[in-house]
Amino acid sequence: MAADHPSTRNLPLDPAASAILFIDVQNFSVRRDGGEFKDVSDADIEGKYGYYFKRIHEVAIPNMQRLLAGFRKAGIEVLHTTIESLTKDGRDRSLDYKITGFNVPKGSWDGKVIDELAPLEDEIVLPKSSSSVFVSTHVDYILRNLGVRQIVLCGLLTDQCVESAVRDACDLNYLVTLVPDACGTYSQERHDFSINAIKGYCRQISTDDLLKEIGQ
Amino acid sequence: MAADHPSTRNLPLDPAASAILFIDVQNFSVRRDGGEFKDVSDADIEGKYGYYFKRIHEVAIPNMQRLLAGFRKAGIEVLHTTIESLTKDGRDRSLDYKITGFNVPKGSWDGKVIDELAPLEDEIVLPKSSSSVFVSTHVDYILRNLGVRQIVLCGLLTDQCVESAVRDACDLNYLVTLVPDACGTYSQERHDFSINAIKGYCRQISTDDLLKEIGQ
Amino acid sequence: MAADHPSTRNLPLDPAASAILFIDVQNFSVRRDGGEFKDVSDADIEGKYGYYFKRIHEVAIPNMQRLLAGFRKAGIEVLHTTIESLTKDGRDRSLDYKITGFNVPKGSWDGKVIDELAPLEDEIVLPKSSSSVFVSTHVDYILRNLGVRQIVLCGLLTDQCVESAVRDACDLNYLVTLVPDACGTYSQERHDFSINAIKGYCRQISTDDLLKEIGQ
Amino acid sequence: MAADHPSTRNLPLDPAASAILFIDVQNFSVRRDGGEFKDVSDADIEGKYGYYFKRIHEVAIPNMQRLLAGFRKAGIEVLHTTIESLTKDGRDRSLDYKITGFNVPKGSWDGKVIDELAPLEDEIVLPKSSSSVFVSTHVDYILRNLGVRQIVLCGLLTDQCVESAVRDACDLNYLVTLVPDACGTYSQERHDFSINAIKGYCRQISTDDLLKEIGQ
Repeated sequence: MAADHPSTRNLPLDPAASAILFIDVQNFSVRRDGGEFKDVSDADIEGKYGYYFKRIHEVAIPNMQRLLAGFRKAGIEVLHTTIESLTKDGRDRSLDYKITGFNVPKGSWDGKVIDELAPLEDEIVLPKSSSSVFVSTHVDYILRNLGVRQIVLCGLLTDQCVESAVRDACDLNYLVTLVPDACGTYSQERHDFSINAIKGYCRQISTDDLLKEIGQ
Repeated sequence: MAADHPSTRNLPLDPAASAILFIDVQNFSVRRDGGEFKDVSDADIEGKYGYYFKRIHEVAIPNMQRLLAGFRKAGIEVLHTTIESLTKDGRDRSLDYKITGFNVPKGSWDGKVIDELAPLEDEIVLPKSSSSVFVSTHVDYILRNLGVRQIVLCGLLTDQCVESAVRDACDLNYLVTLVPDACGTYSQERHDFSINAIKGYCRQISTDDLLKEIGQ
Repeated sequence: MAADHPSTRNLPLDPAASAILFIDVQNFSVRRDGGEFKDVSDADIEGKYGYYFKRIHEVAIPNMQRLLAGFRKAGIEVLHTTIESLTKDGRDRSLDYKITGFNVPKGSWDGKVIDELAPLEDEIVLPKSSSSVFVSTHVDYILRNLGVRQIVLCGLLTDQCVESAVRDACDLNYLVTLVPDACGTYSQERHDFSINAIKGYCRQISTDDLLKEIGQ
Repeated sequence: MAADHPSTRNLPLDPAASAILFIDVQNFSVRRDGGEFKDVSDADIEGKYGYYFKRIHEVAIPNMQRLLAGFRKAGIEVLHTTIESLTKDGRDRSLDYKITGFNVPKGSWDGKVIDELAPLEDEIVLPKSSSSVFVSTHVDYILRNLGVRQIVLCGLLTDQCVESAVRDACDLNYLVTLVPDACGTYSQERHDFSINAIKGYCRQISTDDLLKEIGQ
């Protein structure tokens, strides 16, 4: 009775049933003067956050730029999500973001995808106010409407919003492809542990190999 | 163990736990040159749609204008939803809207709330692509974040998007207040029957009485 | 990019991607001694509820029995939902059912599907505590897991739980087939109006024609 | 406008608005002859799984027994979830469980909560077929109906089903209390890393301190 289903996660993308989602690659969390870092001292930016900025700017973002170009050329659906409230005062945010003290006001520069990955006019951008994009947006509904069954995930932070999206997408019946070298978090150890912890929930592939797979 | 709960739907609004949602009061479905009517003949606008335009422009919209002003003055949360795709080509729409042939492109004039009810900068506007706003947006999540337990519904069409919202809101534990004289559909009979069919799911009150209730 | 989609609701069932759901055909609401009617006087059973009992027992249930047999023979997935709390005291019910005063205790006779339609051991039965089965159960998730894209709906009451299910199923991208002569409510007028009101959300077909369609 | 909200996760439980959920503490994953281990060699049970069985049987289960007794005495809502299909052949399972090869048939011994934590007749038990209980059951709806705002989580595996539940519960506006010494997974390192990774999403407290907090 039940429809056939794949017997492995290790399937190449079917472009017509695939999408890539860039998670939280926005001024707030990527720029020195973004909301998350503008009040951090130079010493901490170099020290405590040194690994993070190097990882993001020298590894993750360049890889995401290549992915973005490749997926666009291959005609595969591109979506973006960023932390952004639907109001200026953030009253619509999740309780978690209220407690944490995160508020990226509606329409603010902090809420914008960084210029290097600027969305095209007809790419979907979803403001979210919780870790998992599947909880605080209706992305699951949108993906179903688009006919997407395979979702590629990358962005920030590996062990927070990205990992939560991997877990929920897997539970929601998507075949998830994670691109670890297009993700980043505050330390290599946290990154590595997260990638390892969720290896049962997704296929993991490098930017190089994924681009080859989609013929780019 | 379980928390106390109200034993009736006939409760006045608690302003701090309330919101009003205006449904689909947009150029597409209200204006003579909106997407839904621009290709309709003058004869049909007068005839087949004569009741509808009269109802909307002489009853429902004036009442919604009064509600909007009153709820703003009372400091009660105001939300709007309109039929609008997240893309220009509407590929993100529900299957229902694809089959029906509805596409209100992202950013279009058709997708805007009518000027008479224009949203303030910090009011939440949710584009939707199905009848029930609870299915194609994450309004339930937003309402929870806002602390809303009582929701006032009005707009278009009484027996389609409004009725679906009443049913889902009720099932989702909101105390629903419907304002029949701030709603409209294609015939008085359809309006009346819908209002009657859902009377078990909501409190029903006139614009006048609701404004009195919130002290406006 | 987006996957192809059907351009009409009027498609015959693809058995491998279909399911039928029987809604609330349970002792509580069908039997003279069910929870809903046991305290009703004989005069009211004959009078006020005369139409209802005749409709259910002479039209809707016989048709549902034929559908059940036919779908089983055709190897199409069969699901049942009934109003039933997950607890004896009903503390887990929706606010709507608490206010209405409905409580069908977990495990009670009232919560059982009627003998005429008794579920087979491996058919899924979902207890629900709100009008729409899509709100108070995870049937949408189950249907996705089963690979179901076309859902046949029938049962009780036409204009309440059945209509709510039609609306939500349609919004959730299912192709909905409603079998009006396998549904019933408290008056012919309410039945007819509901069927008419939702004709844009579903295909409507008789028991005879549906059985023919699936080769039974 | 928005309702007041707590400004910290470090709040003691309000018994009337709290619940505890025991995750996957079932024969399948806890017993030597459970489905997960019955075909594993004695050597691997001692070796590869030695840490796990010791952790579960000497630490996590005894702590869960104390929690269960204490929460019952305090009159706080107790819920259980187990991996269990709604069918014998598991056709209703998530794609993830199909790919993984997990099937705990409906009604099987494998799907039962272990005797040490056997549910009382009126405690809610939710069969699930994905990692996060919030995706493959309607527990969020049930908790809302129960008036629960604070949820205590414990069970198996720390870094899989428990962690996914912590993440989703937090995103869904619950104040989450995690009891690390009432959880377990396949290695101490995996346990510790998971607990650390999610410390921003929940309050973490020992069994001893939690029992004291609820006066037991």
